[in-house]
Amino acid sequence: MRLLLVGFGTVGQGLAELLLKKEKMLRDQHGLQVQVVGIADMLKGSLYNATGIDLPAALETAKSGGKLSELPHKYKGDALSMIKTAEADMMVEATYTDIKTAEPATSHIRAAFEKGMHVTTTNKGPLALHYHELAKLADSKDVRFLFEGTVMSGSPVLNLIRETLAGSTISEVKGILNGTTNYILTRMEEGLSYENALTKAQELGYAEAIPDADVLGWDALAKVTILASTVFGANARPDDFPCKGITEITSDAIDAAKSRGKRYKLIGRVWRDGNEVKASVAPEEIDLTHPLAGVMGATNALTFSTDTLGDVTIVGPGAGRTETGYSALVDIIHAGGKR
Amino acid sequence: MRLLLVGFGTVGQGLAELLLKKEKMLRDQHGLQVQVVGIADMLKGSLYNATGIDLPAALETAKSGGKLSELPHKYKGDALSMIKTAEADMMVEATYTDIKTAEPATSHIRAAFEKGMHVTTTNKGPLALHYHELAKLADSKDVRFLFEGTVMSGSPVLNLIRETLAGSTISEVKGILNGTTNYILTRMEEGLSYENALTKAQELGYAEAIPDADVLGWDALAKVTILASTVFGANARPDDFPCKGITEITSDAIDAAKSRGKRYKLIGRVWRDGNEVKASVAPEEIDLTHPLAGVMGATNALTFSTDTLGDVTIVGPGAGRTETGYSALVDIIHAGGKR
Repeated sequence: MRLLLVGFGTVGQGLAELLLKKEKMLRDQHGLQVQVVGIADMLKGSLYNATGIDLPAALETAKSGGKLSELPHKYKGDALSMIKTAEADMMVEATYTDIKTAEPATSHIRAAFEKGMHVTTTNKGPLALHYHELAKLADSKDVRFLFEGTVMSGSPVLNLIRETLAGSTISEVKGILNGTTNYILTRMEEGLSYENALTKAQELGYAEAIPDADVLGWDALAKVTILASTVFGANARPDDFPCKGITEITSDAIDAAKSRGKRYKLIGRVWRDGNEVKASVAPEEIDLTHPLAGVMGATNALTFSTDTLGDVTIVGPGAGRTETGYSALVDIIHAGGKR
Repeated sequence: MRLLLVGFGTVGQGLAELLLKKEKMLRDQHGLQVQVVGIADMLKGSLYNATGIDLPAALETAKSGGKLSELPHKYKGDALSMIKTAEADMMVEATYTDIKTAEPATSHIRAAFEKGMHVTTTNKGPLALHYHELAKLADSKDVRFLFEGTVMSGSPVLNLIRETLAGSTISEVKGILNGTTNYILTRMEEGLSYENALTKAQELGYAEAIPDADVLGWDALAKVTILASTVFGANARPDDFPCKGITEITSDAIDAAKSRGKRYKLIGRVWRDGNEVKASVAPEEIDLTHPLAGVMGATNALTFSTDTLGDVTIVGPGAGRTETGYSALVDIIHAGGKR
């Protein structure tokens, strides 16, 4: 399996570390020999070599803040030209999400499919805006389009639905899809004001300097849209659904909920209403006896309501270097490994 | 896919209902046409017909307390002779668990493998006592040996590990594996005495008249042994591990734990200690912030500690007609369906 890594930030590096650490396991348990033939990163520079690049050296260089272009096998074009000319079996698209344009990730994915590569991506843009077009293109080229890392990082959500809930009808999916806001709500319940909890989240690297994408619910909305399109088959875009963040939740409201045996959570929700697929993001008072109520800090969780098992809930990480890198690894195993 | 159903109690009937309800989905989504050619039940009687029995009629008869032997295609031998002579592709072993002898289930499974059938079972006996022998036999005959229903009924536990945690190293699995005891502990926290909570559980059908297998921890121990053998590769038997039930937990102890921010749960646990696999069943005080603490009533849950994702927890049903029937359905899809 010859791999192109497009985007060599946290996720790309997390995957590279796992590929090195898990080399023997991939070969012994899945009959999979993975060779990284190219890395393309807008800031760090690019490498390409048809018989494999020096992955430990690339990782070392990136971690120490150096440029890949200082290493042998420097590549001079951009990511798109590398995808169009490379000989590879699978592309890992791990550039940053631009939820307004979904670019350049969507162009990368289209080009990879056109070249007959499987794709795994952790980028929410292409899934939230162009899922059906891309899935159709992948089908027509007989390659796999996998994206476990777009929802709850490497926690097995999309693969769980596909592989282990096979044969079930899912009527609703709801949960905590944004770790930053869940962390802020957790700290507010402990007594911090919204402002102080946000500052803590920023200090810990959970929240950005401009925290809008998290606190206004947009990140959760992108994930909800991905679930609506991929699990429920809707032809949906983020704008189709109501979205409300946590900025209007006060400490008083949290205390009042607590006194009623409830806890505020920012809940993303997708459900069937007759033939329609509906979705929303909004703070909800969750009963303390519900499994979602106990999910504290930056952890994520989703509850699936099914016709076969009733409710099944999965609780796991929603972000992280190794955790999101692993989502790409498990997709690589699904695309190319012996099972 | 020609199916033999051995054991036609709650689980077998739950599966039969799902097979009828999901016929179109199995064909359209998994390219799977399932035909039940035989049913063998020690109490209800047996049916066999190489071109398929009348499943709706068998289900109707069993539900109304009638005998299968009143229907066409009556079969006169026992289950073992049916397995040895039937033309079938897969056997569903759903007889009652005898944890001391693992019979007659183990003999059924051996015979099915010898005939080249895949097997799915919900019976904990053969897994807890003879897993490695049976897995080796299945391998040598190139058939699948699946048993999703033995732990947390149809909740995707074993398939989750195999399919969606591929490439991860699991250092510990711990959780709530017995719904009856979790229900009793939940009611005790609400103020009932142990005796009254047990009576409630018996009234609801959660606990047997002789509740030892649940309240002394033996049921959880069987599941822990299955996890030790199948997930951790141990060559283990239930007797190898310490086991303590909930009979010595008092209401006072529960209150005292609560005042420390803790909650008693009967925890089954398997972990690696160097090259050794250790396991135990015992009541433990769980911190209220842990996902397992929020699992109330008859629900089950397991937390996997992994090198790739940290902790991942799955919460779902641990019993039930449809829920356990579904475990067999998902195994049938894995054995024979297009994925």
